[in-house]
Amino acid sequence: MKNKATWIWYPGDFEISLFNRCMARRYERNVQITPFWRMDSHFVTVKFYANFVLGKEDRIYIKADGTFNIFIDKIGYIRDFKGYVDLGAGEYEMQILVNNVAALPCIYVEGEQLKSNKESFRVTCQDNVFYPAASWIFDSPDDSPNAYRLPVKETAYLKKEVKGGGILYDFGREMTACVRFDGAQAPVYCYYGESREEALDKEHSEQTDVVVPEKGIAATECTKAFRYLFALSERPYQELVAIEEAPDEPKCSFKCEDKKLQEIFDVSLYTFGLCKKEFILDGVKRDRWTWSGDVYQSALVNYYSHFDTEVVKRSLRALKGKDPINAHINHITDYTLYWILSLCDYYRYTADKEFIGEMLPWAEKYMNFLAGRADEDGFLYYHADDWMFIDWAPMDNRGITSFEQVLYAAALKGYAELCKVCGKDGRAYFEASEALWKKTVERFWREGRFLHGEIDGVQTGKVTRYANLFAVLYGFADKKMREDILRNVLLNPDVQAITTPYMKFYELKTMAEYGLYGEVMQSLRSYWGGMLVCGATTFWEAFDPAETGAEKYAMYGRRYGKSLCHAWGASPVYLLAAYVVGVMPKEGGFVCRPKLSVLPPFEFSCPIAGGKIKISYDGKKVLVEADGCNGELFFEKGSGFEEGSIEIESGKKYSFERVKVKVCRSV
Amino acid sequence: MKNKATWIWYPGDFEISLFNRCMARRYERNVQITPFWRMDSHFVTVKFYANFVLGKEDRIYIKADGTFNIFIDKIGYIRDFKGYVDLGAGEYEMQILVNNVAALPCIYVEGEQLKSNKESFRVTCQDNVFYPAASWIFDSPDDSPNAYRLPVKETAYLKKEVKGGGILYDFGREMTACVRFDGAQAPVYCYYGESREEALDKEHSEQTDVVVPEKGIAATECTKAFRYLFALSERPYQELVAIEEAPDEPKCSFKCEDKKLQEIFDVSLYTFGLCKKEFILDGVKRDRWTWSGDVYQSALVNYYSHFDTEVVKRSLRALKGKDPINAHINHITDYTLYWILSLCDYYRYTADKEFIGEMLPWAEKYMNFLAGRADEDGFLYYHADDWMFIDWAPMDNRGITSFEQVLYAAALKGYAELCKVCGKDGRAYFEASEALWKKTVERFWREGRFLHGEIDGVQTGKVTRYANLFAVLYGFADKKMREDILRNVLLNPDVQAITTPYMKFYELKTMAEYGLYGEVMQSLRSYWGGMLVCGATTFWEAFDPAETGAEKYAMYGRRYGKSLCHAWGASPVYLLAAYVVGVMPKEGGFVCRPKLSVLPPFEFSCPIAGGKIKISYDGKKVLVEADGCNGELFFEKGSGFEEGSIEIESGKKYSFERVKVKVCRSV
Repeated sequence: MKNKATWIWYPGDFEISLFNRCMARRYERNVQITPFWRMDSHFVTVKFYANFVLGKEDRIYIKADGTFNIFIDKIGYIRDFKGYVDLGAGEYEMQILVNNVAALPCIYVEGEQLKSNKESFRVTCQDNVFYPAASWIFDSPDDSPNAYRLPVKETAYLKKEVKGGGILYDFGREMTACVRFDGAQAPVYCYYGESREEALDKEHSEQTDVVVPEKGIAATECTKAFRYLFALSERPYQELVAIEEAPDEPKCSFKCEDKKLQEIFDVSLYTFGLCKKEFILDGVKRDRWTWSGDVYQSALVNYYSHFDTEVVKRSLRALKGKDPINAHINHITDYTLYWILSLCDYYRYTADKEFIGEMLPWAEKYMNFLAGRADEDGFLYYHADDWMFIDWAPMDNRGITSFEQVLYAAALKGYAELCKVCGKDGRAYFEASEALWKKTVERFWREGRFLHGEIDGVQTGKVTRYANLFAVLYGFADKKMREDILRNVLLNPDVQAITTPYMKFYELKTMAEYGLYGEVMQSLRSYWGGMLVCGATTFWEAFDPAETGAEKYAMYGRRYGKSLCHAWGASPVYLLAAYVVGVMPKEGGFVCRPKLSVLPPFEFSCPIAGGKIKISYDGKKVLVEADGCNGELFFEKGSGFEEGSIEIESGKKYSFERVKVKVCRSV
Repeated sequence: MKNKATWIWYPGDFEISLFNRCMARRYERNVQITPFWRMDSHFVTVKFYANFVLGKEDRIYIKADGTFNIFIDKIGYIRDFKGYVDLGAGEYEMQILVNNVAALPCIYVEGEQLKSNKESFRVTCQDNVFYPAASWIFDSPDDSPNAYRLPVKETAYLKKEVKGGGILYDFGREMTACVRFDGAQAPVYCYYGESREEALDKEHSEQTDVVVPEKGIAATECTKAFRYLFALSERPYQELVAIEEAPDEPKCSFKCEDKKLQEIFDVSLYTFGLCKKEFILDGVKRDRWTWSGDVYQSALVNYYSHFDTEVVKRSLRALKGKDPINAHINHITDYTLYWILSLCDYYRYTADKEFIGEMLPWAEKYMNFLAGRADEDGFLYYHADDWMFIDWAPMDNRGITSFEQVLYAAALKGYAELCKVCGKDGRAYFEASEALWKKTVERFWREGRFLHGEIDGVQTGKVTRYANLFAVLYGFADKKMREDILRNVLLNPDVQAITTPYMKFYELKTMAEYGLYGEVMQSLRSYWGGMLVCGATTFWEAFDPAETGAEKYAMYGRRYGKSLCHAWGASPVYLLAAYVVGVMPKEGGFVCRPKLSVLPPFEFSCPIAGGKIKISYDGKKVLVEADGCNGELFFEKGSGFEEGSIEIESGKKYSFERVKVKVCRSV
């Protein structure tokens, strides 16, 4: 690493700068809509420092994005800079001050002996605090982080149809792409559709473009999300080509002969792949913004699907914003709490202490902010400035809701764990978590379930699923309470049903916690399978099987307001991998608890614990192989295999046969 | 006001954005040097809101710098925006969201009934806090604040001289200007000089340019400060023209037949005029930065010379920076304290409560920051991150210095007064000021003078003037202490002399406080008069009459490092106006205490107390006239006029004759 030159910058500022670029890509037709929370700027002036020794003379090339100067302790400011500095053998301090309001200030330094990277340079925004410089993949002097773009490829449409004076193109699947009209000689009016109906509805389609040929090129600059494109022009053009931002290759695989299940998995994987851009987006068509509650779930999908830890870090860094912390992340109380919990998951799946160390001071600021929003009992209560979101469903979240308290208790416990990771004493947060949980039970646990909340000190009496699910999920509920919740809430059809895949995620996790894998599989098949029946090539923001025709595309009072490619629709990948195939990280290794009673014969592999696990089941035999990680395999009662656990070591192959367990070591 | 449309923005962000532009103009030859303190950015996304009623239909034109959208409550987002919105009669809320990373997000809205200004629009950076929008002089839709430039004019050189293969131009006086070489056909190498020596010293001149003709134009873009320009080119050009940023017309005037005194005043006035740019700069050649300690003095000059309150507000807004406050202003402890005191002066001279109200929350943050830097006795002590500047002179400011405590006590008292102005209870700060003063006396007052400071709990024993002067100036010293300080410090040649005009300012103010006007006049004549003898056309950063030849231009180890046009050199304007002519604001009006015993016959006028005062003295008669303000005239004992005070009313003319006072009312 010391021997590689790379572009470097002030930690977090690449993300902040890129976030500004990416969050400005939401358009409703030709109306740009940027986020409604405070967007921050990179530091406009930063100074890089390197102390180094040259064993012999060296020519050091220096490049910067922004105006800059170079100061070397033994020389002073470098005048008449020609792109490099020649230094003789000796010990030096080099300072490079870069100024850039419009884009990220960053540098690239390369000599034979001095190379810019996070080991060689430290950086400050001139507030007397110094950090190791940050870097990523920009290892060539011509490859500045400010020019970062996702890779693209040309993609042809599947079929076209002349219709209503224009041409309707069908790409066969949802994608995010720019378009190019080769040979266009007049403006091309574009109406995009996630559905055929949307593309053809020129008045109401959510996304439009007018592509005006300039210097022989007629192409769009900002990607749109679509399967269909309805294009009209007064003069013919030769061809339409999509410039597609194709999803990364996934790192996990699930194969089975159950076509429905296979399709649910594949479409989930593809859906998440589309939403995983520079940051994790909620959906690719409508807001294209990064939301903490969505990132929390998506990150869990990602640990199995792509294991792209960089996109998780980027999203969490960008979401935290900059000082001063005086509002919730995305303006939503729950979303600040999920941000803390996202760090806990990140650590569980990556064991990356460095990033947790980087985020801990920010987590502390948010914990302080939360404490300042709590009443004397420690309850988070409604502030006019804070959105208590919970879920898209009928409910009144004014006053104090039980859900926010359970989630807060989880975040307090989570933060205490983060402190432990960093060798900091977080016991007070453990205690605060326990105290809050106790008070939450006292205040909201009535007749064997949590009530939704109180307004002006009076219980509304409404029961919702949320606090009940989370009390089980975050390990707060004891045995008796779990039984009550199962009976009175989870399996009680009188309690308001969940209709978003967002909360469906937690409901199914809870089902799995209770061992109700049959119900989980049934739900996957009916809910996600239901979308497939409607022709989904990606999973949706919300789905109600009762809706028919174009009605099912409506949301937020708009005919095509619903996002048909929404990251939280991708949770089957996680539910299948983590709960049904049952692969989870555990203390530096993994555990695998396959639910063979509900799984058809399958082959599965995914990244875990710094390595990879492969497991297959052909109805008779289970084969397991771990590469780069060790773990434990559990056969459960009723699986058809001998109940119990077996240690799995990296690099060895294991084979188990039904009824009696037989371990075959690899040669 | 309600009826005028103007460009509007988030309060303070015009200053922050302009500050980034202006502070990047410091160059040492071709090395750009930006400030070494944290520079902040404007908010990149801001949202403007207007609630309004249209009595009839209206076409509302909307312009923004940045990408933007318009949302109107009864319509939704405005699609296909063509530059205006047509609205029928009715009540509306309009929201305009503007996104601009590179420059200030701002808008201009003009209908017949709705016009953008600080009454009609409020604005937020989306942190749930709303402010009235800010505006200034940008009243035309084509005149965005992002295009703001100081006015310029073409100026010809006074004489030229062919020399050493080039031409030496002399403009006769220091100025700030770009240059244009008409008819240039080859690069022109420019070496600027505040002195003739500097311009001709191609190796060491501080400012250089290489002007390369492009498309028939050969001109520079960033102004330089110079009287002389040495230009060399391989091919002849037709003419050199300076594009000068000429100083504003002053609002005060002092005329007398004492040529030396007249020149001291005029050169001071011109010096300050040159340093008063978009912000108050310390000097126009070298750092061209805005420093709080310098602004504090310059603002006092400005209240008499130009009464440009906008440049004071802009400088104070820019200096405070943005949240979080975690370093001193300019990184200097004293400079945070002067910033607080600048607000007090600003209020004394302008009675502008609105600006004080705007700054008070920032002042509070800095008071909290200061408190966090103090020890248990309330003393501000040395931190490695904080620069305890005090003055350019030999001294050791580690540990605890008496000066910083006296200044801190003054700032505590000043902040308490600011609270009072805003109707806030600041008594605790009065008390803290008194307590700190008491402890400072206990700790540092020894044998009739303040010692400079202690290091590691041990007094260094050194005596300097600083704490002693300030104890008198800020009204802390009692009669006995004042007498001691006068004898033991002020008039004691064994105490280290002050050599910068910066601290000379306070020393002469203190002299004046003691009534030593003869000494003040003598000092003006010798110190500032001494620079004139050396050919100064503007006053310098420092002056030692013992230095001769080019040696006098050296500073900071550089041959021409000294700034020969430095704002703190302009203090004679203030000293003459406020102490010798004796015009000061007092409780909404003014007092005038002319020191006729030390003044030659003169005519003087300046802005004061919201109006203007004129006073003249021909050796026999004093004429006084106030316009737009009332005040009090004092004749002192020994002035030759009857001792006592006379009320001066706006619009009336007063005439007084020596020995007996005679009031002649105007007709």
